[in-house]
Amino acid sequence: MTYLDSSATSQKPFAVLACLSDYYSYHNANVHRGAHRLSRDATERYEGARDKLARCIGADRRETVFTGGATESINLVANSWGRANLGAGDEVLLSVMEHHSNIVPWQLLQQATPGLVIKYCPLNAGGEDLDYEKLADLITPRTKLLSLAHTSNVLGVTTDTALCLSLLRKKGHKDAAFLLDACQSLPHKPVDVKALGCDFLVASGHKMLGPTGIGLLYGRLPLLEKMPPFMGGGEMIEEVTLGGSTYAGLPGKFEAGTPNIAQAIGWGAALDYIESVGGLARIEEYLDDLSQYLATRLRAVPKVTVYGPGPGEKRAPLAAFSVEGVHVSDLSTFLDLEGVAIRAGHHCTQPLHKYLGISHTARASCHLYNSREDIDVFVEKLEETLAFLADATAPR
Amino acid sequence: MTYLDSSATSQKPFAVLACLSDYYSYHNANVHRGAHRLSRDATERYEGARDKLARCIGADRRETVFTGGATESINLVANSWGRANLGAGDEVLLSVMEHHSNIVPWQLLQQATPGLVIKYCPLNAGGEDLDYEKLADLITPRTKLLSLAHTSNVLGVTTDTALCLSLLRKKGHKDAAFLLDACQSLPHKPVDVKALGCDFLVASGHKMLGPTGIGLLYGRLPLLEKMPPFMGGGEMIEEVTLGGSTYAGLPGKFEAGTPNIAQAIGWGAALDYIESVGGLARIEEYLDDLSQYLATRLRAVPKVTVYGPGPGEKRAPLAAFSVEGVHVSDLSTFLDLEGVAIRAGHHCTQPLHKYLGISHTARASCHLYNSREDIDVFVEKLEETLAFLADATAPR
Repeated sequence: MTYLDSSATSQKPFAVLACLSDYYSYHNANVHRGAHRLSRDATERYEGARDKLARCIGADRRETVFTGGATESINLVANSWGRANLGAGDEVLLSVMEHHSNIVPWQLLQQATPGLVIKYCPLNAGGEDLDYEKLADLITPRTKLLSLAHTSNVLGVTTDTALCLSLLRKKGHKDAAFLLDACQSLPHKPVDVKALGCDFLVASGHKMLGPTGIGLLYGRLPLLEKMPPFMGGGEMIEEVTLGGSTYAGLPGKFEAGTPNIAQAIGWGAALDYIESVGGLARIEEYLDDLSQYLATRLRAVPKVTVYGPGPGEKRAPLAAFSVEGVHVSDLSTFLDLEGVAIRAGHHCTQPLHKYLGISHTARASCHLYNSREDIDVFVEKLEETLAFLADATAPR
Repeated sequence: MTYLDSSATSQKPFAVLACLSDYYSYHNANVHRGAHRLSRDATERYEGARDKLARCIGADRRETVFTGGATESINLVANSWGRANLGAGDEVLLSVMEHHSNIVPWQLLQQATPGLVIKYCPLNAGGEDLDYEKLADLITPRTKLLSLAHTSNVLGVTTDTALCLSLLRKKGHKDAAFLLDACQSLPHKPVDVKALGCDFLVASGHKMLGPTGIGLLYGRLPLLEKMPPFMGGGEMIEEVTLGGSTYAGLPGKFEAGTPNIAQAIGWGAALDYIESVGGLARIEEYLDDLSQYLATRLRAVPKVTVYGPGPGEKRAPLAAFSVEGVHVSDLSTFLDLEGVAIRAGHHCTQPLHKYLGISHTARASCHLYNSREDIDVFVEKLEETLAFLADATAPR
């Protein structure tokens, strides 16, 4: 089969599977509190994975918090930083192209914080990117948070973070924070949190060749230090008494309970694998080419509209598209019968789809294991399917 | 080596490792929203694991929510049910023997809910079990929640839940909820939520032969239906608009973001394995015998104090103990050198240790892969270690 659904989740290299089996077979124990060899062994591997991830994003290990996934990471920021720092009249600035995971947590926070304002930056006239002029207008001294997708999971466009940051620092609240959702960037391009200058960054392991059930929250040290815990339990405490508790230092304060040990270690193995094939820069280079090929081939199919950046413009290795007169669910169902896996739906971006005036799109997305041949197969089967559908619906 | 630390985390049967490898190799995809075969396949397996877990605990599948772990499950209840139902003057009743994961979430909730009262039930005179008379005294019409360990991870005692429930229904608030932390019971004994009559029950997969990073929240349907979401994101929504969102039905409402897919499926494989060896009732029978053997052998070692239920009384397959004049960390370190893995520390129950007047205990704990021979090796090495330490510290 031809798997073109890596924006939803990536396939895993054998090295990651082998790492998980090895961990559970020979090193499995609970971490941090054990005096025995297995526990020290598991702890070293778990904390070693943290070191790898911290190096990968250019962060300090204390700034590198493991969560259950990027969604949990954003909810952590909303509940911890948000509840502590946002009040009536304060403004959270998102965009219309955000994934639901970067909308709903703020709406839930708004319900708990009367008077909190959420604003959404629109797209430019072509619907290809944020409208940065409008963004500038929307940022006010009450803007306490700008939270954006680093790369859109539908448009494939990557946000001009340097521009966003300079606008935020110039026009926003003096303590305004900048959060980047790197779920669709970190899996296949170098991401350096210090170079980006963001305050928070979130990502998921399972989209980056790693296991399900593991995510990243990066936070700048001074912010994380001041933030209250999100969840309470073992691991995140210093001392518990019946009258109250004190909390562990970073990053433990935000990792309540038995961590997702094997999953973090598996993500570490994915990072090793990525290094072994040349690193994220090499993967980006390869996928830059493939994404252009994907978009170009798709645009050449009659009645197809490809969303996001235009011909020749950089895009993530994904293409969301629609076909005039064809329901995308039919499309994905027929392609599935031909062994081609794409996704059809709203891709957890209902507001973006509504904004673009469509209910659903089909999306083909790649990772490093895909090739031009995969795209050829996909486009060939797509054309066959469209011909079949046209024939089936033609007047007799 | 002799692994006697299963109360911290269990080892995994080969069937679970094989299931994870098989899943990632042949069925890996994101669930629920995909039209392609792999996605349907992953969804079937993920939801099939939910069905297995629901059957295991006697619940409806809509009442069976997957979380990242038992700690997250309790935090979910505290943040969702707690914030919606608890206010000034309301009382949460815990016990002094709770794991930190059943204390700190309520303390965090208390900080967000001025006037919320937390009370702790003491132990009986022997320090072996809850003091049920005191429990009766502590329950008042303001008691809105009774949240207890089903089985203590240090004492090994199992709470008389029928008595607790009847006291709560008779003397507590008419809408009082009863939460059971089944982390140390469900892994090796039959647990039926309807027979227990609890409103919430939490447990962890990794203590039950399953992977790390997966937990259970059981909640009675009418309660879960009324509860607001805990985290926001994909999966848990029905419709998202810029003005607000509506939420998915159960259990999706509480599963924001890409679920812990492989971990749930792996836990399902662990449940299959448990069935294949005779089920939880058979495992309990086997471990009942082993736990008596463990406690009996330990009590026969001079200067050893075993905590929890006395000779002949039922106990979970664990024994926390101290040795007069010996620091338990030294003990676990020496035993580790001899290839015996036990745990030494506060086992995430600092208040219980303080209550018992000790700072730390050593703990040996078993699961179905342990045998009397393991305990013989452990006790033999323990005696050698104590003899060595006595010799090393004897006046010359």
